[in-house]
Amino acid sequence: MAIPVLRPFSSISYSTSRRNLHLICSVHRPKRLVSCATSNHVSSEAGVRLSVGTHFIPHPDKVEKGGEDAFFVSSLSGGVLGVADGVSGWAEKDVDPALFSRELMANASSFVEDEEVNYDPRSLIRKAHAATSSIGSATVVIAMLERNGILKIASVGDCGVRVIRKGQVVFSTSPQEHYFDCPYQLSSEAVGQTFLDATVTTVELMEEDTVVMGSDGLFDNVFDREIVSVVSSCDNVSDAAKALANLAHNHSKDSSFDSPYSQEARSQGFDVPWWKKIMGMKLTGGKLDDITVIVGQVTSSLSS
Amino acid sequence: MAIPVLRPFSSISYSTSRRNLHLICSVHRPKRLVSCATSNHVSSEAGVRLSVGTHFIPHPDKVEKGGEDAFFVSSLSGGVLGVADGVSGWAEKDVDPALFSRELMANASSFVEDEEVNYDPRSLIRKAHAATSSIGSATVVIAMLERNGILKIASVGDCGVRVIRKGQVVFSTSPQEHYFDCPYQLSSEAVGQTFLDATVTTVELMEEDTVVMGSDGLFDNVFDREIVSVVSSCDNVSDAAKALANLAHNHSKDSSFDSPYSQEARSQGFDVPWWKKIMGMKLTGGKLDDITVIVGQVTSSLSS
Repeated sequence: MAIPVLRPFSSISYSTSRRNLHLICSVHRPKRLVSCATSNHVSSEAGVRLSVGTHFIPHPDKVEKGGEDAFFVSSLSGGVLGVADGVSGWAEKDVDPALFSRELMANASSFVEDEEVNYDPRSLIRKAHAATSSIGSATVVIAMLERNGILKIASVGDCGVRVIRKGQVVFSTSPQEHYFDCPYQLSSEAVGQTFLDATVTTVELMEEDTVVMGSDGLFDNVFDREIVSVVSSCDNVSDAAKALANLAHNHSKDSSFDSPYSQEARSQGFDVPWWKKIMGMKLTGGKLDDITVIVGQVTSSLSS
Repeated sequence: MAIPVLRPFSSISYSTSRRNLHLICSVHRPKRLVSCATSNHVSSEAGVRLSVGTHFIPHPDKVEKGGEDAFFVSSLSGGVLGVADGVSGWAEKDVDPALFSRELMANASSFVEDEEVNYDPRSLIRKAHAATSSIGSATVVIAMLERNGILKIASVGDCGVRVIRKGQVVFSTSPQEHYFDCPYQLSSEAVGQTFLDATVTTVELMEEDTVVMGSDGLFDNVFDREIVSVVSSCDNVSDAAKALANLAHNHSKDSSFDSPYSQEARSQGFDVPWWKKIMGMKLTGGKLDDITVIVGQVTSSLSS
């Protein structure tokens, strides 16, 4: 069963240890404000499954409206994870950037068991996008775990996935962008990308692997080595999701932190003005943004 | 048909435009010295296939012996690419590090059509490793393209693969290492890794995608954005392979180049001595190494 998580509001946490619980954050009223950090085994069938924790922290300027990211988690098969990040530029056109991402994730969650989707993340993106009527655009990543351990991922834009095994990142998605800070995006307009532009990858997971999915608010502010370190130091997926989101949030507000975002900016030729440069200053700082983190740990259905 | 390329000697190039040629660098005598840069469509069956170019430049101190990398290319199905990098530490034990990597690749090339392997790169690693009797160890990556466009990759250690689409990297393997500069490796000894430690991923390729496979000599010395730039500027896969190997070779000898290798070293806490640090100096430089580059471009079997 799919669980849309719409309009996350703040970093309030709640969790449950109830096994095989299908609803993590049930939001049947689309306007309800909700945020969650959950710990949950999302499948009870034979093979592997994901135990999932989530955490969301909105952009400091968007706390009141609940940010523009949206995400969902489903218990289907080994587990389904999805994140969408509403493109903030729409605010300049008096369009709430959250509407598109939330409707997209709500549609994805409602179609997750659809026969046409056939447990394929690119098909799910296609169907969810086609059903989305809001004006706007969003980056999106959806990952579906089969019970045999194959995690299939489709991504449009710069949401991302990391897989951590024995203390190192063994798999990483690559962001797609038109130019710096302008990611590929599903859109209400014809100029945007479609499911055909999704990068589709799979990775064979092993028991005890950790999957970290996030919006660019996570990956722009936290290095992979930090993600590994945080995941290693946490006892459970809820704590890991919360710790990662908090680290990203703290880095995003730190103007002296030489973040992945500032390093990427410099590598693409952006920098401080020349008069700052000759004073030895360089472009640094995190990136203020909505931060969505989903952490999943692979367990055997027969264990725990 | 599989094409072992054993004991590459120098960066001599030869190429062919003959379509569907199966032998790129036929080396039936295991001890023959050979190196090549080839341009070749490696499959003629329906669906997609790879047009492949290769280039090898040995470590400057290992030119005479032909370096310690080995690679093979096969025409089977959509095309098979493999690189192995002999672990140089074996020289301290009076073992030629090239023997293991060359035998491993020769075995992989001979088993590529094996029924048990069933066109699966992890199975090919398993079978090739089991058949290798030389003393030594090596990192290895093998990629097999199905005619439906699915590229399946198995990797142990820090050889790597990039997929470039429309001017950006859309897929990247992640290196595995025990600690800095000590990669996971298949070995003649029980302490080494096995096929079970391989990271197994797939990526759905599209026509005109470019696949870049290399030993760590490429990825330690050339940034992804440089790989994209070189590939974009070359007219064909042979030129691209040669240009990438040359760029890596030049960077490897440049003590002032802030290479991916030196950046990774610093991020893991390595640096110049304190007395150099207070003079504003930092750890920089490329990494002298064998450099193997295989570039494949995805084409339709019906086109060209």
